[in-house]
Amino acid sequence: MAHTGIHSQPVRSCLLLVVVSVWVQQVDGVWPLPQQLDQSADRNSLSPQRFSFIYGRDSAAQTGCSVLDAAFKRYFSIIFPDFTKGSGLLMSENKSIRYTSVSSVTTVSTIVSCFVVADNLSVSEGQAVLRSVTVWGALRGLESFSQLVYQDDYGSYFINKTEIVDFPRFAFRGLLLDTSRHYLPLHAILKTLDAMAYSKFNVFHWHIVDDPSFPYQSRTFPDLSNKGAFHPFTHVYTQSDVMRVIEHARMRGIRVVPEFDSPGHTLSWGKGQPNLLTPCYKGDVPSGSFGPVDPTVDTTYKFMESLLKEVKFVFPDSYVHLGGDEVSFACWQSNPNVRTFMEKMGFGKDFTKLESFYMESIMNMTAALNRTSIVWQDVFDYRERIPQDTVLEIWKGETYQAELSRMTQAGHRVLLSAPWYINHISYGQDWRNSYAVQPQNFSGTEEQKKLVIGGEVAMWGEYVDATNLNPRLWPRACAAAERLWSDEEKTLDADLAFPRLEKFRCELLRRGIQAEPLFVGHCKHEYDGL
Amino acid sequence: MAHTGIHSQPVRSCLLLVVVSVWVQQVDGVWPLPQQLDQSADRNSLSPQRFSFIYGRDSAAQTGCSVLDAAFKRYFSIIFPDFTKGSGLLMSENKSIRYTSVSSVTTVSTIVSCFVVADNLSVSEGQAVLRSVTVWGALRGLESFSQLVYQDDYGSYFINKTEIVDFPRFAFRGLLLDTSRHYLPLHAILKTLDAMAYSKFNVFHWHIVDDPSFPYQSRTFPDLSNKGAFHPFTHVYTQSDVMRVIEHARMRGIRVVPEFDSPGHTLSWGKGQPNLLTPCYKGDVPSGSFGPVDPTVDTTYKFMESLLKEVKFVFPDSYVHLGGDEVSFACWQSNPNVRTFMEKMGFGKDFTKLESFYMESIMNMTAALNRTSIVWQDVFDYRERIPQDTVLEIWKGETYQAELSRMTQAGHRVLLSAPWYINHISYGQDWRNSYAVQPQNFSGTEEQKKLVIGGEVAMWGEYVDATNLNPRLWPRACAAAERLWSDEEKTLDADLAFPRLEKFRCELLRRGIQAEPLFVGHCKHEYDGL
Repeated sequence: MAHTGIHSQPVRSCLLLVVVSVWVQQVDGVWPLPQQLDQSADRNSLSPQRFSFIYGRDSAAQTGCSVLDAAFKRYFSIIFPDFTKGSGLLMSENKSIRYTSVSSVTTVSTIVSCFVVADNLSVSEGQAVLRSVTVWGALRGLESFSQLVYQDDYGSYFINKTEIVDFPRFAFRGLLLDTSRHYLPLHAILKTLDAMAYSKFNVFHWHIVDDPSFPYQSRTFPDLSNKGAFHPFTHVYTQSDVMRVIEHARMRGIRVVPEFDSPGHTLSWGKGQPNLLTPCYKGDVPSGSFGPVDPTVDTTYKFMESLLKEVKFVFPDSYVHLGGDEVSFACWQSNPNVRTFMEKMGFGKDFTKLESFYMESIMNMTAALNRTSIVWQDVFDYRERIPQDTVLEIWKGETYQAELSRMTQAGHRVLLSAPWYINHISYGQDWRNSYAVQPQNFSGTEEQKKLVIGGEVAMWGEYVDATNLNPRLWPRACAAAERLWSDEEKTLDADLAFPRLEKFRCELLRRGIQAEPLFVGHCKHEYDGL
Repeated sequence: MAHTGIHSQPVRSCLLLVVVSVWVQQVDGVWPLPQQLDQSADRNSLSPQRFSFIYGRDSAAQTGCSVLDAAFKRYFSIIFPDFTKGSGLLMSENKSIRYTSVSSVTTVSTIVSCFVVADNLSVSEGQAVLRSVTVWGALRGLESFSQLVYQDDYGSYFINKTEIVDFPRFAFRGLLLDTSRHYLPLHAILKTLDAMAYSKFNVFHWHIVDDPSFPYQSRTFPDLSNKGAFHPFTHVYTQSDVMRVIEHARMRGIRVVPEFDSPGHTLSWGKGQPNLLTPCYKGDVPSGSFGPVDPTVDTTYKFMESLLKEVKFVFPDSYVHLGGDEVSFACWQSNPNVRTFMEKMGFGKDFTKLESFYMESIMNMTAALNRTSIVWQDVFDYRERIPQDTVLEIWKGETYQAELSRMTQAGHRVLLSAPWYINHISYGQDWRNSYAVQPQNFSGTEEQKKLVIGGEVAMWGEYVDATNLNPRLWPRACAAAERLWSDEEKTLDADLAFPRLEKFRCELLRRGIQAEPLFVGHCKHEYDGL
């Protein structure tokens, strides 16, 4: 697996400067909206036969840069779908129709497009120049460029003169998939990564295990999936599967942040790892059921350390999500050993202290492995003093603004997910709710606002599997994608955004993403699945 | 197109008596639940190599009965998916695994199954006998039979001794698709018909045209779709498409009831049929926009008669749905010619009288064509005296019980759709709401209750096209399917029904229907689309 220096912190550290400058008329815009976009009505033809992506002479990246080489290939097919898909016969028939209908033929001025990853900006006729300080910025620019190309009624390709200066508002633009409540086949995950890249998401938060099943096939603890997955062969992610996901994501400028949520949400872990979970008691005897991870015994910490070492080895990203949410204390309370431990530690009857004790150990382990922890808000709610570089993720619905204030006040970096739980569905255009979220609209200083590093769309799996994942995600997740990328002042009006989102949804269909309709209407290229 | 006497009124007139009597253990039941089901733990093997469907010696239907011949072929593949899909290599590998693991091999007692469509009931070892007075009942019995067969861990097929006596509670078990707000490709409709048959729905209510588009390609008025469809070639149903839908449905015991909704919901009609719609006025001049069909001019009635004649010719079913809902009176009111007509007719300012006048004409036309009208409840609400054999369909939400009372009091047959608008989605297990509906729970005599001939699940198309149709329909529509088929007393408890519905949903997946999950979990055969 390619695990390059480039990959670690691909987007966080860089200021993206993506300039697409070509001869173009605004068709209907780009989703998410670029920071600056100027378009004229001058349109120029693009010929799939003569079009080319090339690296600029002064570009640091040159042929051999695998991410961009692959992106050029991918975007060529996206920009010219007929060129790659159409049958030769039909193509030539179209051409003959076109050239015999003389009045409709426009002069074809060839554009040789040229993408440069370098500092200089070059704009000249027949060329599009893309400048970016990182390959990841170049990927975003290619995406914008692909959305600018359109076809006329005769199938000819055009692009209007356009100037774009672009960069993301937030560095962390995540999407969570839950592969425990239902297993998602590999191709569903890869397809989601494709659509994420089209919307400029850059973090795949893989909530890979949870109570219902443990599909991650661990090399250190194979029994976790052998016994904890829905099926040890058909419903698991092998090491090779995980590598494919990471590599597919990396090629699209997407980081993969795995979540191994503990001490709660671990029922499935217990099947393959005896003595990990707390035995619940009924009176003086074990009831036979189990609670959260047992935080009172050394074996737990040894196990977690081995697991996290493997996770560090398998997942190259600098972040690891450690969970820490929704721990039920009833089972701990019922267990006499836990109660003894509480007494010994001086926790009294306050089980939040026990959870904090556990999470602190796990976070310290993670830091020792040179990884940055992300945890759910519960960890902060229980104990405000937690390692300063820990990223806190807000998931509780109604009070998220107050929580943003408190967390940033304490100096923590924050991710907002609460208003973007898009597994929750309702009738009608509920993307508008996601669109209306204002992540920095809370009481706090400018410094505090900067601590909001981004947010995540969460697609929890209670009612979602491969049958309905794609139409529930797309285009609904696009609303948060624009909120996380674009200038809020320029994207306040959902009614203004609507036709641009409709066009983008049709574009998703054309690219094979099963994106559901926003309202009555049709697309030129409808979904032809089945 | 086969347009047989059998097809007209296939189910309404008959008392279904479906008896499947075979050697079986209840695995998890049948969906929708049969009227009587007795199962024992005795299980017997089925060999795909030796299994056969045959017509009983005294059966009126014999080889050459196209509906049953095709059903035998279809259900063989459904019952033995591995036999038809599995590769030879894998099959023999499975077998070798099985036969080397001697302790697990059960004695294989061959069952030769025998389906008879006749009056006599024959039960003997190694045989399953299905008796029905109609071929349509035999189709339902085959479906039940297919749901009784299961595979053990080694892939062997089994069926337990079972006795079923079955018939539907309601004769009319419909599902509405809306192909105007979004176009649904032919394969999406055919797939829906497949799933309908699995759930024992028997009426496809095709809401084929409406305001947004007119995809029906009329032979009499080709401009209706040429100008009124989203696209005159990619977004239309040709005559051949319509025939395929009708024939696909007929083979599965499903009637196709087309709806040509007027005088409202007709905006798209106006594009290809000048002078059909009422020109709206602003003051003394036409505003350029159009309202409902113009009920004041002869040309309207001539057009409607020609259209309905074509509909009669194309759609063999005895029912035609004439719509009649949600007519906005503002445009009529603005038009001076309409106001003059109102005066002449003595309607005063009551536009409901004008709508009733129009609908009465259309219903009379339909009766003259020897077809039975179905209309939305508005027609009844405006004018209680309407032709007695007209079927009224209830769509307005909260007061449907009172409406049921009133309509049946007036002696009309009624269809209930209001509580089954399943285009309305909400988070969680909303199938339970559909399941809780009690269509005969209203104040009225026994005679009145009998006038409820059934109901319809409606999937309106504002937010639905081929991208999300299937997962929104299935398994949610199954709840209404059971309510319309099964004994209410035996199916009151949704919690009891839940595991059976979960199993049925997995079965739908296995049959290639993209049915979404009901809750956390997995199926042995997951959806493998994409």
